[in-house]
Amino acid sequence: MANAFFQPVSAMELARFAGVPTFMRLPALTADDDRMDLVELGLVGIPWDGGTTNRPGARHGPRQLRDQSTMIRAMNPVTGVAPFELVNCADLGDVPPNPVDIEDTLDRVTRFYTDLMLRGIVPLTAGGDHLTTLPVLRALASDGPLGLIQFDSHTDLFDSYFGGHKYTHGTPFRRAVEEGLVDPERFVQVGIRGTAYNTEDIEWGEAQGIRIIRIEELFDRGIDDVMAEVRSIVGDAPCYCTYDIDFVDPTHAPGTGTPEIGGPNSFQAQQVIRKLEGLNLVGADLVEVSPPFDPAGGTAWLGISLMFELLCVLAQAIDARR
Amino acid sequence: MANAFFQPVSAMELARFAGVPTFMRLPALTADDDRMDLVELGLVGIPWDGGTTNRPGARHGPRQLRDQSTMIRAMNPVTGVAPFELVNCADLGDVPPNPVDIEDTLDRVTRFYTDLMLRGIVPLTAGGDHLTTLPVLRALASDGPLGLIQFDSHTDLFDSYFGGHKYTHGTPFRRAVEEGLVDPERFVQVGIRGTAYNTEDIEWGEAQGIRIIRIEELFDRGIDDVMAEVRSIVGDAPCYCTYDIDFVDPTHAPGTGTPEIGGPNSFQAQQVIRKLEGLNLVGADLVEVSPPFDPAGGTAWLGISLMFELLCVLAQAIDARR
Amino acid sequence: MANAFFQPVSAMELARFAGVPTFMRLPALTADDDRMDLVELGLVGIPWDGGTTNRPGARHGPRQLRDQSTMIRAMNPVTGVAPFELVNCADLGDVPPNPVDIEDTLDRVTRFYTDLMLRGIVPLTAGGDHLTTLPVLRALASDGPLGLIQFDSHTDLFDSYFGGHKYTHGTPFRRAVEEGLVDPERFVQVGIRGTAYNTEDIEWGEAQGIRIIRIEELFDRGIDDVMAEVRSIVGDAPCYCTYDIDFVDPTHAPGTGTPEIGGPNSFQAQQVIRKLEGLNLVGADLVEVSPPFDPAGGTAWLGISLMFELLCVLAQAIDARR
Amino acid sequence: MANAFFQPVSAMELARFAGVPTFMRLPALTADDDRMDLVELGLVGIPWDGGTTNRPGARHGPRQLRDQSTMIRAMNPVTGVAPFELVNCADLGDVPPNPVDIEDTLDRVTRFYTDLMLRGIVPLTAGGDHLTTLPVLRALASDGPLGLIQFDSHTDLFDSYFGGHKYTHGTPFRRAVEEGLVDPERFVQVGIRGTAYNTEDIEWGEAQGIRIIRIEELFDRGIDDVMAEVRSIVGDAPCYCTYDIDFVDPTHAPGTGTPEIGGPNSFQAQQVIRKLEGLNLVGADLVEVSPPFDPAGGTAWLGISLMFELLCVLAQAIDARR
Amino acid sequence: MANAFFQPVSAMELARFAGVPTFMRLPALTADDDRMDLVELGLVGIPWDGGTTNRPGARHGPRQLRDQSTMIRAMNPVTGVAPFELVNCADLGDVPPNPVDIEDTLDRVTRFYTDLMLRGIVPLTAGGDHLTTLPVLRALASDGPLGLIQFDSHTDLFDSYFGGHKYTHGTPFRRAVEEGLVDPERFVQVGIRGTAYNTEDIEWGEAQGIRIIRIEELFDRGIDDVMAEVRSIVGDAPCYCTYDIDFVDPTHAPGTGTPEIGGPNSFQAQQVIRKLEGLNLVGADLVEVSPPFDPAGGTAWLGISLMFELLCVLAQAIDARR
Amino acid sequence: MANAFFQPVSAMELARFAGVPTFMRLPALTADDDRMDLVELGLVGIPWDGGTTNRPGARHGPRQLRDQSTMIRAMNPVTGVAPFELVNCADLGDVPPNPVDIEDTLDRVTRFYTDLMLRGIVPLTAGGDHLTTLPVLRALASDGPLGLIQFDSHTDLFDSYFGGHKYTHGTPFRRAVEEGLVDPERFVQVGIRGTAYNTEDIEWGEAQGIRIIRIEELFDRGIDDVMAEVRSIVGDAPCYCTYDIDFVDPTHAPGTGTPEIGGPNSFQAQQVIRKLEGLNLVGADLVEVSPPFDPAGGTAWLGISLMFELLCVLAQAIDARR
Repeated sequence: MANAFFQPVSAMELARFAGVPTFMRLPALTADDDRMDLVELGLVGIPWDGGTTNRPGARHGPRQLRDQSTMIRAMNPVTGVAPFELVNCADLGDVPPNPVDIEDTLDRVTRFYTDLMLRGIVPLTAGGDHLTTLPVLRALASDGPLGLIQFDSHTDLFDSYFGGHKYTHGTPFRRAVEEGLVDPERFVQVGIRGTAYNTEDIEWGEAQGIRIIRIEELFDRGIDDVMAEVRSIVGDAPCYCTYDIDFVDPTHAPGTGTPEIGGPNSFQAQQVIRKLEGLNLVGADLVEVSPPFDPAGGTAWLGISLMFELLCVLAQAIDARR
Repeated sequence: MANAFFQPVSAMELARFAGVPTFMRLPALTADDDRMDLVELGLVGIPWDGGTTNRPGARHGPRQLRDQSTMIRAMNPVTGVAPFELVNCADLGDVPPNPVDIEDTLDRVTRFYTDLMLRGIVPLTAGGDHLTTLPVLRALASDGPLGLIQFDSHTDLFDSYFGGHKYTHGTPFRRAVEEGLVDPERFVQVGIRGTAYNTEDIEWGEAQGIRIIRIEELFDRGIDDVMAEVRSIVGDAPCYCTYDIDFVDPTHAPGTGTPEIGGPNSFQAQQVIRKLEGLNLVGADLVEVSPPFDPAGGTAWLGISLMFELLCVLAQAIDARR
Repeated sequence: MANAFFQPVSAMELARFAGVPTFMRLPALTADDDRMDLVELGLVGIPWDGGTTNRPGARHGPRQLRDQSTMIRAMNPVTGVAPFELVNCADLGDVPPNPVDIEDTLDRVTRFYTDLMLRGIVPLTAGGDHLTTLPVLRALASDGPLGLIQFDSHTDLFDSYFGGHKYTHGTPFRRAVEEGLVDPERFVQVGIRGTAYNTEDIEWGEAQGIRIIRIEELFDRGIDDVMAEVRSIVGDAPCYCTYDIDFVDPTHAPGTGTPEIGGPNSFQAQQVIRKLEGLNLVGADLVEVSPPFDPAGGTAWLGISLMFELLCVLAQAIDARR
Repeated sequence: MANAFFQPVSAMELARFAGVPTFMRLPALTADDDRMDLVELGLVGIPWDGGTTNRPGARHGPRQLRDQSTMIRAMNPVTGVAPFELVNCADLGDVPPNPVDIEDTLDRVTRFYTDLMLRGIVPLTAGGDHLTTLPVLRALASDGPLGLIQFDSHTDLFDSYFGGHKYTHGTPFRRAVEEGLVDPERFVQVGIRGTAYNTEDIEWGEAQGIRIIRIEELFDRGIDDVMAEVRSIVGDAPCYCTYDIDFVDPTHAPGTGTPEIGGPNSFQAQQVIRKLEGLNLVGADLVEVSPPFDPAGGTAWLGISLMFELLCVLAQAIDARR
Repeated sequence: MANAFFQPVSAMELARFAGVPTFMRLPALTADDDRMDLVELGLVGIPWDGGTTNRPGARHGPRQLRDQSTMIRAMNPVTGVAPFELVNCADLGDVPPNPVDIEDTLDRVTRFYTDLMLRGIVPLTAGGDHLTTLPVLRALASDGPLGLIQFDSHTDLFDSYFGGHKYTHGTPFRRAVEEGLVDPERFVQVGIRGTAYNTEDIEWGEAQGIRIIRIEELFDRGIDDVMAEVRSIVGDAPCYCTYDIDFVDPTHAPGTGTPEIGGPNSFQAQQVIRKLEGLNLVGADLVEVSPPFDPAGGTAWLGISLMFELLCVLAQAIDARR
Repeated sequence: MANAFFQPVSAMELARFAGVPTFMRLPALTADDDRMDLVELGLVGIPWDGGTTNRPGARHGPRQLRDQSTMIRAMNPVTGVAPFELVNCADLGDVPPNPVDIEDTLDRVTRFYTDLMLRGIVPLTAGGDHLTTLPVLRALASDGPLGLIQFDSHTDLFDSYFGGHKYTHGTPFRRAVEEGLVDPERFVQVGIRGTAYNTEDIEWGEAQGIRIIRIEELFDRGIDDVMAEVRSIVGDAPCYCTYDIDFVDPTHAPGTGTPEIGGPNSFQAQQVIRKLEGLNLVGADLVEVSPPFDPAGGTAWLGISLMFELLCVLAQAIDARR
């Protein structure tokens, strides 16, 4: 049962459009706060798009996600989970990025999350572009490679970009496997689509043992069947879930840098997360929300609604590990 | 067969972007017009959002719906109904709201619709927020409680708001049941979803006998099966249909105050109305279109297209009662 | 003193966002209405952009101008003119355009305005692209050439377009002079600017005796001085005022087809009209508002505010001629 | 195997947001280029909306489609087709339209495409409103009537408009059948929906033998079944595919002039094209993308993604005919 | 000299787009915080538009103003004032409004500001519509009527609305004078313009001794001259400054409910505030920023830039009173 | 007299919305084209925002500037200059940036411009963020330090960012002075404004001898007086002009990363360039146009209109040096 301090501001006390927007109206704590020791699940922003090779803007994601998040309520109507009652949740602020230095920012992120690891806080991250997942995994995988569930329209398994550059938002999971952060046999990608440069990424990934499920397969077999396979791939050992908003069809999520038509709708986007219930999740993220391409905020509203679903399965995982 | 006067302006005479925009290019009548006696079905706007606790703007709904409505043509391509040939339809203008007084506006609406009742005019209303349905029901249910079919993502069955305020867009149907305007055994809600504060609304509603069909059930069972149940719930006695645009997925209907992801698409949004054919409908409304959140008007185009579907089933009901 | 019938709907009775949007909330009359005989000043829309060679959309102008016009009130705060008390004003609807036939539409417009002429109604027109002024002048100049005051960033004095086509929005005033509708010695253009193809238009115009005042001259000499010259050019004989919204800087009026930077601001845009007070105006128009390039409607709000200024000087002219 | 010259600029050499935007980053050739003889498949724009009776803007379609097209990559991930390796593709520029003369523009288009025919170049066209397909067919059907597959929400089979005008975007396929350009027995329309003026178009079409498949039938039977029928209708003889973006649901494609709710999503929009594989296609087009109604470009991104699918089946057809 | 705690987060430590957005990146305090005793200048939001009779949305103002405020830096480049070094500034959150009860909200605001008064905190408020100023004045004028400087395009001096309703955003300053909160002899309005219903407001105001300066007078005499008069009107006694964003031309500030063309540009909007230096200001507000009418946030960026100017003159006033 | 080849496509042959958009419809040449030897003035894009510490997006600038540029005509209406007749102008494409490597991109730009220098081509550049000017100056100043005229709201004279990073869009001109590319005694900045972190930049700049003219001074003294001083500062020796679009008021130029209110309007924005006539200009650029913050393109239209003014003074300088 969660501490009374770690509750969202009630809409009966302060209307949803009012107040300083923290994630889901939770208390905002800084690293030196005494109550940090009580936090079990931390919502963190990584406002950074330094790995973006196409259309930038994901650095503005956490701000808009926090703004929209004040319309989130307290309970999951389908699973019945009330995450804020289950575990102590807080907004832990943003990792300070260095917009003009990729290596420096990667280090800053890893240090921030290593600190969370040491405190036993499970992170739910709002990106940022997809390169932000790499330094998070570097912190979380300190005890050995993790399982990984990736919802995405791109594999992000390319080797390099533009003359050998290794760190872009098209390469993080190649790096993660190479660095031993992710066990490729327990790594599954769902939703892959879009025109291709070539098949290098797919071939490399499958050679490592990564299971790559294209969108056609998801639609043909259905969510239940595919997600059952996903669960069996990652098994009971610790795993991480990374959710690129471009997994969803760009009509539903226009505010992103590299949209690919032909994706799931918002209902399907929720359903795949609900099927993660019971997995041994040690963290999750939602990345690539890019507000300049959707100033009205519909993409961020979708994104934070999906983060709430991730929050529910994370809270259950924390509760189950007690 | 409808009177020649009550026909939409033809696009062959005046292009669809031209002319003063009345609802569906119908003649606009005021209360003192001699031809009011001939009207069988009146389209009315209630430009009011005084009950809105979150994001306002629905007061601008009727204006934008009228604007988009000039692209509506004369015939339903699926059911073959030509409503303007079947019954005399007219644009009866807007109820004059009082933007700074809730009670006064509730009274104004009820008076306006009581006058329509006395004339035997069946109303099709463009809201306004969902509180606008309550004073309409007060006028229409003068002969006893009605059946009610509600398409919505929210139950709007809460008791009160912010220190006991009874009249908001989250409470109209609690009031309608308490006031005996709606028979809870003949009241069905379809499409409910979104994060929840608690389960107070659901519990109260189910205790009254209201049938609440969540979106998951709609998608699992399919529209045909669910709508058959809906029809059996309201039966042959007089019933009303209230359609909140936030029933539809917010990607299709971003112009609304309280969007909830994971809803039906625009085809499904049409289909549920077509399944109302043959019911004993005494009125209908389409509410919560909020133009400031969709200046380009796609939501209003969807909304007026759905109002045309409602118009067709209402016209059939009027014709059947002759 | 105006007839009580011809008054705008009061905002104290019906809030400004409510109701079917006629021009400035005036009564809408059709040609067969008995009260047409009482109308002294008619607001008319010409929803047509058939002469547009660049970016179309002005056909949607009258609709959006009517929508924004419901925020106009009753009195000019600077000149003190209360036009609706001074003369009988009404919304006379839109001329039905033929979107796929230029000649046919030109004829339709001329017939419509000839009818107004015969009834003694002074027209205030909402375009439409600038070609719409030509057929209006054909009707109004039936008794001889008029003086013309043109606020614009382009001369619209070119001879032809694309292989000899004579009727485009770049040529109307060449035609008007050639056809004897406008007296070139009493024709003045204010605000001309923008990059040029060549100087053919300027040279031809000046050879006819047209006075062309570039934007630099307007800013250098000031509005008072320039407008005094304008007044002396047109003199006391009947004159017409045509106001292209692209006269105003595109920051203030982005919703137009051929914007040219470096124009007047909205205060200056008003001031030039106020300096027309006392002229013998027989009509006026405001053209080239193109809603697709400004869905939020700021350009239309500017446009209708300028139309109200034109309305005030027209009402004074009508009153003076009594 | 395609010539090395006819390859898109690589994103590894020039980032996708950089460079002058030709269609899919292909080389742009003009009619007098020596390499025109090598071209097998030409991408052409027809920036024209002279046939539009409702909301204009499709003249801006080719520009925005080229802009978005630089995010298209080299390979179809589902069918495995790499069109730029299979045939020599090039951007052949835009047909110069005459915005103020319909007949002249029809002639210009036919001349342009007749020249392509004589060179043996298969055209993939970006419209433009749907009237642009008529002059293309006049060039392509010089050897006899073609089969025609039309994805659309409207039949475009009306006889005339506004007093007998024969050439609008609502009439091209009536003309095409009358002129013997299309064999009505090998003509199929898919996706028809929206409110109707009357049934004149349907009745005429079916009397000619045209197969008209409404959206309800498409959703009921499923894409596989319907597309099998489509294939059997056109058979092995030469056929053309015309794809109106308003076939797709307006939520996915808001940037169009005459949207109709209740259409396919973007995945279904792709699937129907993939089912054209193996047909004897001699050309295709994608029309009615109207940028002023979607400045952010999501509709154009969808449009060009669909054009890539059309490109793949056209390239296969060319390859099969070798 | 300000306390080290009350400093904005530095952009060298956390990039400006990062972090939870408090006003100007200041620390956010709640009423029970020990450091409240140290606060000298409090930034407060009043997210409420219950008095709005036209277009609502100002309830969303404080949120968007906070968002844009993270681009504000530390020093006024013209006056050289570094307000955060001069006095202790903090973000004191939002007054919790009751969106469905005007009286209740008026009371909530007055209680909130009375508490600030008792603590000796000078408030700088972000509205909300203009009715929000009334309850603030009720708290601040507890020791006697204040001087008032109002920048606005409307007088807001009307008596009532729609059947006698006394509390709307068109009436606050009539009430403030009637209630003895403002000394009409020390009350000056600058920028008044826009079409008028009648002259009731002006006549009543001038009869009380209020100095009403229309926009024409401001432009004719110039800012220096007019502001010298303003200063002499309010004199040395305590005064308050209320700044309605619709004072500024709507091209610069489209995000507001009742725009009036012909206003000052953004430079002039700043200049008038800089001329308040040295006055005995006891509070200020910036009201009527309405984000739904400017989602991109330019109006809020202007608004917060003007709030920074107000902050500088308030900080100087606090410093001068020490 | 310019070569017939180097002429823009005529709008009489191809309507302005048609065709592949090169800068101002000029021929596009690549480095290996034979006609490169004839080019005297090259328009080049640098689609890069790697130095941006705040809001990214300027990498998309050249694309949108090219798009809008097709509305530019052939002649300057004020100065009478017809630049395309005066010198041979061409679109030389974009420098290929490396979005994930600052140093690499700086080198790529310098190499590209060194090649232009060797060919004797005067560059007119479309950025890109303001860091792009530094590598251009490295190429152009190979013969010694240049004079520099900078229109901007920021000095961009800071030393470093975020822990010593030397290359950002806030530091280019500190670097340029340090590297001896610019003579500080012949360096003048016009338009500086906005809140400040501190006065480090101003103090360093003035200590070097840079003349920094704040916006207040520009408005007080007037453009003629200030520009006369500017001319005397740079004198007759070779100089470069860099124009940051944020010099202009953000109402006119919202599409930029770091807007500062209170700037010049679009007319003043043009005027300052016209006053550069006769200077010994060796190149110019227009930077910081960021399309994601203005999808409708008004900022780009302003930007390309200003580039045309720069083109005219550059063409005159080239002609004068012959």
